[in-house]
Amino acid sequence: MTQDIEQAFETLKRGTVEIYSEKELKEKLIDAQKKGRQLRIKLGMDPTAPDLHLGHTVVMRKLRQFQDLGHKAVLIIGDYTARIGDPTGQNTTRPVLSGEDIDKNAQTYFKQAEKILDTSKEKLEIRPNGEWLRDLDLAAIIKLCSSMTVARMLERDTFEQRYKKGDPISIHEFLYPLMQGYDSVMIESDVELGGTDQTFNNLAGRDLQRINAQQPQIVMTMPILAGLDGIEKMSKSKNNYIGVTDEPADMFGKIMSISDEMMENYFTLLTDVPEDKIAELIDSEKTHPKKAKALLAKDIIAQFYDSEAAQQAEAAFEQVFARRELPDDMPETVMAAEPTPLSRMIVSAGLAGSGGEAKRLVKQGGVSVNGEKMSDPTAQIAPESGMVIKVGKRKFAKVVVK
Amino acid sequence: MTQDIEQAFETLKRGTVEIYSEKELKEKLIDAQKKGRQLRIKLGMDPTAPDLHLGHTVVMRKLRQFQDLGHKAVLIIGDYTARIGDPTGQNTTRPVLSGEDIDKNAQTYFKQAEKILDTSKEKLEIRPNGEWLRDLDLAAIIKLCSSMTVARMLERDTFEQRYKKGDPISIHEFLYPLMQGYDSVMIESDVELGGTDQTFNNLAGRDLQRINAQQPQIVMTMPILAGLDGIEKMSKSKNNYIGVTDEPADMFGKIMSISDEMMENYFTLLTDVPEDKIAELIDSEKTHPKKAKALLAKDIIAQFYDSEAAQQAEAAFEQVFARRELPDDMPETVMAAEPTPLSRMIVSAGLAGSGGEAKRLVKQGGVSVNGEKMSDPTAQIAPESGMVIKVGKRKFAKVVVK
Repeated sequence: MTQDIEQAFETLKRGTVEIYSEKELKEKLIDAQKKGRQLRIKLGMDPTAPDLHLGHTVVMRKLRQFQDLGHKAVLIIGDYTARIGDPTGQNTTRPVLSGEDIDKNAQTYFKQAEKILDTSKEKLEIRPNGEWLRDLDLAAIIKLCSSMTVARMLERDTFEQRYKKGDPISIHEFLYPLMQGYDSVMIESDVELGGTDQTFNNLAGRDLQRINAQQPQIVMTMPILAGLDGIEKMSKSKNNYIGVTDEPADMFGKIMSISDEMMENYFTLLTDVPEDKIAELIDSEKTHPKKAKALLAKDIIAQFYDSEAAQQAEAAFEQVFARRELPDDMPETVMAAEPTPLSRMIVSAGLAGSGGEAKRLVKQGGVSVNGEKMSDPTAQIAPESGMVIKVGKRKFAKVVVK
Repeated sequence: MTQDIEQAFETLKRGTVEIYSEKELKEKLIDAQKKGRQLRIKLGMDPTAPDLHLGHTVVMRKLRQFQDLGHKAVLIIGDYTARIGDPTGQNTTRPVLSGEDIDKNAQTYFKQAEKILDTSKEKLEIRPNGEWLRDLDLAAIIKLCSSMTVARMLERDTFEQRYKKGDPISIHEFLYPLMQGYDSVMIESDVELGGTDQTFNNLAGRDLQRINAQQPQIVMTMPILAGLDGIEKMSKSKNNYIGVTDEPADMFGKIMSISDEMMENYFTLLTDVPEDKIAELIDSEKTHPKKAKALLAKDIIAQFYDSEAAQQAEAAFEQVFARRELPDDMPETVMAAEPTPLSRMIVSAGLAGSGGEAKRLVKQGGVSVNGEKMSDPTAQIAPESGMVIKVGKRKFAKVVVK
């Protein structure tokens, strides 16, 4: 194995839970290099939940790594099954969607996915699976179903639990993994990416490709990202997520709120920070956790915006953070609503004995309004109720507009 | 319930193992009478095994009873699944058949079925299920599959046994009962007939009709007929069967060979002999079993041929039977091939001392040739090698033509 292949393999392996199999992945990488061909890396897209959060980006970042190594991302839009939904109506993650809804959702998805993926034509292929699934007839479906046994299907984690508990499993639920596997056959994928919750479905693709005389795809599983609460997986419904379209300031604040224990996971799965560097960052003897989280937050924001936005988000956070340190029992000062020079406000709030002292304090950099440091004592300020004027480290006043 | 409906119900109930449910069947019969409508009675035909034997006729006779009560038989030819076969190749009862084979088999089947069913247009409808199954797409199949749970499917007798034993069950095997149930929806059947081995499949039809807002079909199951050996079910492969195209003589001989214990079952399932009469026939104090079996055999032969053929079969059997009682070590008598008067033959065979004695013996009814009683001593007989002349109870001679 040449050094660049070795390096590529290590990059790709980072953060994965399982690779079926590492040996086959290496062989594919070598073969692709030798033949100068692109590997086809499959990722399924769920058109019922188009809004992406960081949980989704874990596999998408892996997909991007493949693209950066020259390979082709093949995104499968599950439009066919979305159009059908779950006929029993029990599975709320399979609602019936109209063609219009699906198109809209796919648009939203791709607009957001652009932030992570290389969308150039030679690096990305988008295929709705209705393209081939709508042509399947009963004979083809019977053939497809003949390739998998009931026992094997019931070994699948979620089915096994439900079956043991006596919860009903409808037979059509057995069809979905087979459809997904059939997608792999149709696009001749070399690798399929997915969360660990997709392991079974993705392995079905291996089986079906084997039966159809194709080289079985490599299956790489990525961990499910924990939500901000550190308890449940990141999801919109749990409101413990960071959306990829969140404002930089929101992203920053949310990352700062995670527990110290979660940092390593987030660094590994959401950034390219090298592993030895991560080790330093999560060692509280070497790096203050607050500082490490700020670095994590800025890294992530820079991915979706740029480093300037990341810096601004940090500064804004610091301001808010500073404001949070205000005492609860600040003296109030009643003012009229008209714009007033800052120095006069300071005096009338009783924070300086004279206009001269007030001017001096401002010029020394010891005065802030709403956490924002002021430099011009003549600045015209429009008083608002709740506005906080701070002088030095310990003198505050809260404005009440009459 | 009027008396005729009561009577119809009792006729239909005869020989059944289960009716799901008797109450619904009565209601349907009453409703049909009230509205002057025909009930639609479904029976599936397997195009892979066109040759009918008495085992098949058990349900067909039931179907005929419905026809005689004015209802319509709907025969479903399973052409679609026969065309697919079993993709795993494991199930030998589902070989792949060409359209030509299926047509040929169906022709054979109907030619034989004519012996049992009323084939008039208003009493019989024939539908190949490819008519609707070939149009099913994935969406429709998913919907179909959503109506049945895995647990319910695995409760099915054969699946349960195989699952417990760890034998593989392919997922496509789950589709067949659903297809069969879908047939019921498509033809809007009122009643489905089948052997007890079809109970599960036929009940699936009830479920699917309910889901499709149809009144669920009545399911009537008939016993599986034991083969001539009384051990295994009647089947061609076990060579323990009576084919409906068997010659009368074969039918007679085969029926005579069954054990006394099997008579009741055969009388009940294969004839219309009233139940109190059957009770007499199977009581060896009242009827000699040989006589009862001969009656059974003649009844069955008369169904497939006529009563004359039945009589002839009995006579032929008696001859063979009588010949079977001949001793192995008969004296032989050599004769020329020319026709000779019977009395002279008797003398030259050494079975009488004179022509006068020979004539007397014949007139007393004590002489038979090849088991046939002779009455005319002057009859010209053409001697044949192997011909047996019997005089009284114990004197025999076997002819050898020189």
